[in-house]
Amino acid sequence: MLAAANPGDTVAYGADPWTERATSQLRELFGARGGVFFVFTGTAANVLGLGLLLRPYEGVVCPASSHLNVDECGAVERVLGCKLLSVPAPDGKLTPELVASRLADRGDEHRVQPGVVAVAQATELGTCYTLAELRALREFCESQRLLLYLDGARLANAAAYLGCSLAELAGCADVLSFGATKNGALGAEAVVVMADGLDGAAPYLRKQHMQLGSKMRYLAAQFCALLADGLWLRNAQQANAMARRLADGLHDVAGVSVCQPVMANMVFAEVTKSLLEPLRRDWHFDSAGDASVPVARWMTAFNTTEADVDDFLAAVRKAAGQS
Amino acid sequence: MLAAANPGDTVAYGADPWTERATSQLRELFGARGGVFFVFTGTAANVLGLGLLLRPYEGVVCPASSHLNVDECGAVERVLGCKLLSVPAPDGKLTPELVASRLADRGDEHRVQPGVVAVAQATELGTCYTLAELRALREFCESQRLLLYLDGARLANAAAYLGCSLAELAGCADVLSFGATKNGALGAEAVVVMADGLDGAAPYLRKQHMQLGSKMRYLAAQFCALLADGLWLRNAQQANAMARRLADGLHDVAGVSVCQPVMANMVFAEVTKSLLEPLRRDWHFDSAGDASVPVARWMTAFNTTEADVDDFLAAVRKAAGQS
Amino acid sequence: MLAAANPGDTVAYGADPWTERATSQLRELFGARGGVFFVFTGTAANVLGLGLLLRPYEGVVCPASSHLNVDECGAVERVLGCKLLSVPAPDGKLTPELVASRLADRGDEHRVQPGVVAVAQATELGTCYTLAELRALREFCESQRLLLYLDGARLANAAAYLGCSLAELAGCADVLSFGATKNGALGAEAVVVMADGLDGAAPYLRKQHMQLGSKMRYLAAQFCALLADGLWLRNAQQANAMARRLADGLHDVAGVSVCQPVMANMVFAEVTKSLLEPLRRDWHFDSAGDASVPVARWMTAFNTTEADVDDFLAAVRKAAGQS
Amino acid sequence: MLAAANPGDTVAYGADPWTERATSQLRELFGARGGVFFVFTGTAANVLGLGLLLRPYEGVVCPASSHLNVDECGAVERVLGCKLLSVPAPDGKLTPELVASRLADRGDEHRVQPGVVAVAQATELGTCYTLAELRALREFCESQRLLLYLDGARLANAAAYLGCSLAELAGCADVLSFGATKNGALGAEAVVVMADGLDGAAPYLRKQHMQLGSKMRYLAAQFCALLADGLWLRNAQQANAMARRLADGLHDVAGVSVCQPVMANMVFAEVTKSLLEPLRRDWHFDSAGDASVPVARWMTAFNTTEADVDDFLAAVRKAAGQS
Repeated sequence: MLAAANPGDTVAYGADPWTERATSQLRELFGARGGVFFVFTGTAANVLGLGLLLRPYEGVVCPASSHLNVDECGAVERVLGCKLLSVPAPDGKLTPELVASRLADRGDEHRVQPGVVAVAQATELGTCYTLAELRALREFCESQRLLLYLDGARLANAAAYLGCSLAELAGCADVLSFGATKNGALGAEAVVVMADGLDGAAPYLRKQHMQLGSKMRYLAAQFCALLADGLWLRNAQQANAMARRLADGLHDVAGVSVCQPVMANMVFAEVTKSLLEPLRRDWHFDSAGDASVPVARWMTAFNTTEADVDDFLAAVRKAAGQS
Repeated sequence: MLAAANPGDTVAYGADPWTERATSQLRELFGARGGVFFVFTGTAANVLGLGLLLRPYEGVVCPASSHLNVDECGAVERVLGCKLLSVPAPDGKLTPELVASRLADRGDEHRVQPGVVAVAQATELGTCYTLAELRALREFCESQRLLLYLDGARLANAAAYLGCSLAELAGCADVLSFGATKNGALGAEAVVVMADGLDGAAPYLRKQHMQLGSKMRYLAAQFCALLADGLWLRNAQQANAMARRLADGLHDVAGVSVCQPVMANMVFAEVTKSLLEPLRRDWHFDSAGDASVPVARWMTAFNTTEADVDDFLAAVRKAAGQS
Repeated sequence: MLAAANPGDTVAYGADPWTERATSQLRELFGARGGVFFVFTGTAANVLGLGLLLRPYEGVVCPASSHLNVDECGAVERVLGCKLLSVPAPDGKLTPELVASRLADRGDEHRVQPGVVAVAQATELGTCYTLAELRALREFCESQRLLLYLDGARLANAAAYLGCSLAELAGCADVLSFGATKNGALGAEAVVVMADGLDGAAPYLRKQHMQLGSKMRYLAAQFCALLADGLWLRNAQQANAMARRLADGLHDVAGVSVCQPVMANMVFAEVTKSLLEPLRRDWHFDSAGDASVPVARWMTAFNTTEADVDDFLAAVRKAAGQS
Repeated sequence: MLAAANPGDTVAYGADPWTERATSQLRELFGARGGVFFVFTGTAANVLGLGLLLRPYEGVVCPASSHLNVDECGAVERVLGCKLLSVPAPDGKLTPELVASRLADRGDEHRVQPGVVAVAQATELGTCYTLAELRALREFCESQRLLLYLDGARLANAAAYLGCSLAELAGCADVLSFGATKNGALGAEAVVVMADGLDGAAPYLRKQHMQLGSKMRYLAAQFCALLADGLWLRNAQQANAMARRLADGLHDVAGVSVCQPVMANMVFAEVTKSLLEPLRRDWHFDSAGDASVPVARWMTAFNTTEADVDDFLAAVRKAAGQS
């Protein structure tokens, strides 16, 4: 699709037919009343999306494990100057009760005021909210005059897992991101504004956040490719299926214990150190925890094959002395 | 002292004899190799002090209960753009172990890098670090290339409790604040730079942080008054003694349980709701926690008298049905 | 008045009778529909005032010579993250035409969007807008959907010069500051919100900007003193009269040429270098310009006496060889 | 090259062979002692580059016409919190004298301190610094303890015009950017750190600035393509030659007057309104100025052909009634 978008000249900064096509398709697919804005990274999508929703003295209620809080090198604090009001959430998911635990300071001028609730779907721990859970959060937010932002870096994986439409997921959010990068693209994310009246600042903030691509057609073309014939869904289904296959293959390996529900393209497993170390020599993955039983994070992708999974499973079994 | 400083004209912005006198006295009292900078509030002292120590991608390891994290309406995030790396600390005190728990991400470009450890002395929970505890933290910080900031809004209370000099307390810090406001002044705080080479930015940052008083002599004169004849120490001793008297008087009141060691000018007590409510009608204090047994924070000051304490104790006993 | 406010305890952070009294008096005097918020410095008043009016991608049209642009060490850029759109204005005053010269970029996502016009009254060059000039600016701003901020660090001097009420001056602004410091106080400024719906963020931003005084009564008492019996006006009249006396006394001194209209408490004069240097040995004042004929800024204050002015004039004449 | 980089898996965030290859080639080509960091846009390169050089109270001396000052929607002010100290420069070029005009405030705590000088090569007005001019600026900066940043969004065009190496241009800078986007790439810029000891913060700031691409190989591959066989230089030569052809073709057109030296890929021309308007119907370009004789900016690119230029020239002549 990039090759198709390449020939000829076009107007810069998004006034081109590829951007027009991709943004209209996305607006329709999501049922968005506001605009769609392409940016380069998931971090940028989160910062721009939150920037549309926050006032300078407001904070973001989010899970302690959220990408926002942990993996963006303080971009929200630096670029928006806002504080994150993080809540421990063992499975990576907020609930109305967890959000409520951060609302006691409302009206106290000494305290950052909670203004936005941020959730990821799928979460950073590979779990998904059910539609009912999302709706409950949405209702709670509305009742508390809180806006809801959804980090959709892995939204396709959640839609594939739940078997629902993107619009059903997006319906709960005021603004959300839709990630193409993890779904097979070179590098492109969309910020989708669902509600009315929230996108006036977006073109300016996107530029200020250093995310306005001059040759926007190449970002747009990536979405065109994924949306063309449902490729986004097939890619996500493949990644999810491979994570499922991996988790299933691990269930009888001694020293490996899957420790989060496997709903997207991630498998979190407690792995004994003696098993972990030989695996690391040939495979690249993250692990966390300084405990004697660290937690490994194994990711699958749109292009992971059954053979890839089986090779890795064989390596795990070998490391476990079970080959 | 303000009246004494008032007559006549002098040069603005600190080039006056009162500022010269107060800053030399403070430098000597603290053993500071760097400068002393007056600001208006404790929040401002914290932000300026940390601003001298932090690079833009660094964060501050601090107790979750710290003023910095909870009670400054996000000033650090807004003005410095920095993230706080908070650690739960039930008694408000950091330890090398607690700090170590936030150091795992060093060298990971996705993560804010811990650069400064911030402690309060006395803490926001009325506890004090012993000199040995402070020195252990200092050594740990040095071994880990971390700088140490000390929030001394209540430093006088800690010195009074420990019976040590201000220099002994300050010796552990790279930069610290020394609060006059809670010690009886109208409103003045000092940022004291202990180490060499850290204060070059201070005059500019103070102005940028909107803390450069044109009539600086009136800030300086407040310190002159407190330092003149050890008034700062007598004030702190009085406040501490009244907190002690209050805690002692509470020990046999049913429904009231002092829940933090009383080392400074604060008493934290779990109080039954039925007791709390009548008290609130006549007395102004904070309480926290949504539990059935809330925690009240009762503060004493330089001007609290034994009669004040006894009046309050009588009111507590009456509310408890023990009068 | 500070002595009167001192005895006894009161609630902190502004819930005290002195703050209540000063803020009601100010609201009435200015005809303000919003709140009044005390801060410590003129820079802080400007940043808080502008912070109530600006969105993150908006800029402030202001004179190049404004305090905001020149003398606040970049506080607006640091704390608000906003760009100043400065316009050369030889007499320190904006006009609709000058503002219009910065409006061409509206709607261009690459450009900071003009959102607020900021004027000082009196200006940093000692000039005053007439009421007609202010009203013309106000009308222009309304027609262009721009908000108007007025830096009133020397508002009293302008009111004294124009013989008008503070309400007449304030009527042109959405938000303005009213300076007590230059009017004789120890150090206190008020941010006055004239329009409806603009002050909701003010308590939080004031805290975040490190301007929330715990012992607010001492800020409030300064205003109480100035407002009690028209002291603010007498102080300003005295300062203005002394500047007038100084300028009049300079008119026949060779080598000194007053170069801005004298309307407030400042005299700007081109002074030959040979005259300037001996003067500097005994008197403290600013001068600017690297030309062979520098421009001196001579300030008078509420407490400048006729004898002070005459002494200085004698020194000038002596330096000019005219004594 | 993107197609070549696509197959197979590789490690994310830059630990891949394409990034290794492109960064080593660039380091060698520029003679850089520090690292090379890819980002997505020219604005991002400027902000990251400056962020490596600035302390929070320092400002950037730059031409008023610079992209930094005019066309980045206040990104420097927002993300770095820093003030730009702009200087009018009719041909877009700074000189030691122009820089010196912004240095008077050094040491004054009320003023932002000049810390970095930022120049663009080629400039935003299509002009180039000679190597001698750059060296004079460099020497001046060194003598004044100022760092020098070079915005090289069009560095290839400058090298092509001057017939010099990239290393000769880069030698004057502490940090510079090298633009691939305007040189034919999809969208990629490099921040090149020339001096020692300046790149430690770069990985963290890049992430914080939302510029860390997970699939870095696709950014790197764009540079690999341009560097492979001197394509970057041929592209720039073609763009420059076409601008030259355009300017030459305009010299006898009534109502069009080229008003900046044509040294890169831009032609600035004063054009009568009657000529401008019909041209705009079929061609997309910027113009500025509200005068009766606006200034048009006509750009050429790596893929502009002689036929393109001749078509446009024919359109200009027709609009001028000279066809």
